[in-house]
Amino acid sequence: MDRPVTIGMLGSGTVGTGVVHVLKENAYEISQKVGVPVQIKTVLVRDTHKVRPYMKDLHLTDDFEEILGDDAIDIVVELMGGLHPAREYMLAAMKAGKHVVTANKDVVAQFGKDMFEAAEEYHTGFRFEASVGGGIPIVTPIKECLTANRLTEIMGIVNGTTNYVLTKMTRMGSDYASALKEAQEKGYAEADPSADVEGLDAARKAAILASLAFNTRVGLSDVSVEGITKITPEDIDYARKLGYVVKLLAIAKDSLSQGIDVRVHPVFLRESHPLAAVNDVFNAIFVKGNAIGEAMFYGQGAGALPTASAVIADIVALARQIAKGVGDEIGCTCFAHKSFCRLDDTISDYYLRLLVADEPGVLGTIATVFGTYGVSLKSVIQTRYVGDKAEIVVITHRVQHRKMREAEQALTDLSVVERISNVIRVDTPREDGT
Amino acid sequence: MDRPVTIGMLGSGTVGTGVVHVLKENAYEISQKVGVPVQIKTVLVRDTHKVRPYMKDLHLTDDFEEILGDDAIDIVVELMGGLHPAREYMLAAMKAGKHVVTANKDVVAQFGKDMFEAAEEYHTGFRFEASVGGGIPIVTPIKECLTANRLTEIMGIVNGTTNYVLTKMTRMGSDYASALKEAQEKGYAEADPSADVEGLDAARKAAILASLAFNTRVGLSDVSVEGITKITPEDIDYARKLGYVVKLLAIAKDSLSQGIDVRVHPVFLRESHPLAAVNDVFNAIFVKGNAIGEAMFYGQGAGALPTASAVIADIVALARQIAKGVGDEIGCTCFAHKSFCRLDDTISDYYLRLLVADEPGVLGTIATVFGTYGVSLKSVIQTRYVGDKAEIVVITHRVQHRKMREAEQALTDLSVVERISNVIRVDTPREDGT
Repeated sequence: MDRPVTIGMLGSGTVGTGVVHVLKENAYEISQKVGVPVQIKTVLVRDTHKVRPYMKDLHLTDDFEEILGDDAIDIVVELMGGLHPAREYMLAAMKAGKHVVTANKDVVAQFGKDMFEAAEEYHTGFRFEASVGGGIPIVTPIKECLTANRLTEIMGIVNGTTNYVLTKMTRMGSDYASALKEAQEKGYAEADPSADVEGLDAARKAAILASLAFNTRVGLSDVSVEGITKITPEDIDYARKLGYVVKLLAIAKDSLSQGIDVRVHPVFLRESHPLAAVNDVFNAIFVKGNAIGEAMFYGQGAGALPTASAVIADIVALARQIAKGVGDEIGCTCFAHKSFCRLDDTISDYYLRLLVADEPGVLGTIATVFGTYGVSLKSVIQTRYVGDKAEIVVITHRVQHRKMREAEQALTDLSVVERISNVIRVDTPREDGT
Repeated sequence: MDRPVTIGMLGSGTVGTGVVHVLKENAYEISQKVGVPVQIKTVLVRDTHKVRPYMKDLHLTDDFEEILGDDAIDIVVELMGGLHPAREYMLAAMKAGKHVVTANKDVVAQFGKDMFEAAEEYHTGFRFEASVGGGIPIVTPIKECLTANRLTEIMGIVNGTTNYVLTKMTRMGSDYASALKEAQEKGYAEADPSADVEGLDAARKAAILASLAFNTRVGLSDVSVEGITKITPEDIDYARKLGYVVKLLAIAKDSLSQGIDVRVHPVFLRESHPLAAVNDVFNAIFVKGNAIGEAMFYGQGAGALPTASAVIADIVALARQIAKGVGDEIGCTCFAHKSFCRLDDTISDYYLRLLVADEPGVLGTIATVFGTYGVSLKSVIQTRYVGDKAEIVVITHRVQHRKMREAEQALTDLSVVERISNVIRVDTPREDGT
């Protein structure tokens, strides 16, 4: 083929601008790698009259049909975000024989199956590297580079907003509200930050990563989610004293005996873990496989140019195939149908912070309750006074989530327990390396 | 195609064993991903009579011609190591129309050009993911995932032996000799460790990484090399006091104004740098690109199973194309012909440790010499006494390598200077982010 590979782009926001910029800036190198130039022809925008200096050479339209019906367009790049009409536009594009590249984690997490079925039916590519980890290469590495492995675990810092907030709280001793305010002022958190701080954004990425890693379909509803809104400076301070940092992790495990377990929640992560040094808005994805052992992929999880880097990697991969006239896409890799482990059956060490009456025998009473529910304690520390109450920090040994919940309920029912201030899972390496 | 993709393997050492093991262990998943099974048929060994329980199902031969002439063999996997006859066997295999996968950093660094020319001439694939960073995916990520970027810098911890030695020296205060001895006892260093500790192994990987990253051919002779044999516990101690850790880095830079600069040497790396937390035998490659910003790839740089993970990723990529009957290999990406920056013209901050006469005015004399050669000093610290001599540590501002060398010579010529104990580059982030 000697005509340029041609793109129709849906959306002209931050990432779209980045894609236009990088495709222009690195046009020579990209054309060398593809064999022919790669060019954007048409951009779908809301308002064609808005002045967009960086898009002055491009044709703007507010009518998706114009892109859909344009036979010169080989690849549709979807950067609108949101579920609808992004999902419908992508399905229509594939039905029209166009390849699709997207950065849309919502659609991939919720409608990934539909997308792959359309790609297979209409023999097109469907690529989504930018939907997880921004610029960090992780979709292609899992699908191709780690393909020799049976992956057993993924742990990811996949949300920059919450990592920034937790980093500020750790470094400056800030409380949650002021760290979040600073993140908002710097543009790292949205005016309504709930999707980030409640863990929902991370949960979408967890679903995508788990589907890729374990070759089985994991949807958003399969992910148990807990955010960072309850984390206090006290929790972070206790973590440090015990040799941990607090991180919001997307965790996905595939144990042959228990099934797939996918969750997002804060974790006391030991300081020596490679993820513990991932700070500010940086993201990283740590994987375990039965050949590679441990590996980690680190970089910028958001931003116009990093995300454009991932989007264009997908474009170039497809453009090479188009230019060569070969179809070599890896389609859906969810060839397995694995069962899920119930959250109640998951096992972890736990940190609990409780406020209790300052009376003789209270520690014993509490320890007895834990014992009743089969929760074995690693340490119980009385740490300080809050008014006339005593604060106690408990670290448990490995325990089933269900038993832990029962013990929590029983503790709350005790008259000497004022409240359970927080409960956070603790990442403790096992002797068997799990 | 519905016959299995078939492999002839050259070599039956550690990595070969790993490849046999992982292909068997993960056979089902791999066949799902390729579309057909992937099987090893023949293994080239030195002694066909040696008992190899893990290869009992495989045909062993001591005659390469048997593999070369076998039309059923699609892919030759070269795991013999060394330049010859590995190079000749791989060229012959490609001439016979077979795809080649290798873990051989020597051949790739020295004869990469020949290999790619053969691959192009005979329309075969030539893949070498395992030649850098062991299990860490880095060749495919640079060639494919970061393809949108003009990469400007690579910094890598690419030699596990030296990273283990430096980690031990840092954590335990061990001297070089005893840390090396421990590495040898644990099997992390060879009986003759010179290729590792002198930086030659890292230099080969630096040449490969630079060629990939900058799209221009970088050979082993283009890499300036310095090892870790001169590093002492004192250097490591001063580094820590100044907020640094000592790492052996493979560094490759592409500045538009100065050309390509590729080197291997110890560096005072600031503690907050992502590479600073990479310890023991782990490897990591840190990259900067004009779209992605910063990214890092971390994992096990050696070992049977991690290296097998990388080798099999290459096998699977080729096997998919064979099974589908498409040829979609990215060939040689060295489409540019960039000039090199001379070592003398490279610029860095430096740490110097000197032993000088304990006399009034010595600091002034030394500072004057630095000034004469245009070397501006950030700090000069008299640290301790060694016998009747005083030890001085100097940190310079940015200076050309040539000027630094001249200043070193002039200092050595001073009668008050007993010796320059060590000179190590300091990684200081610039205001412009370089």
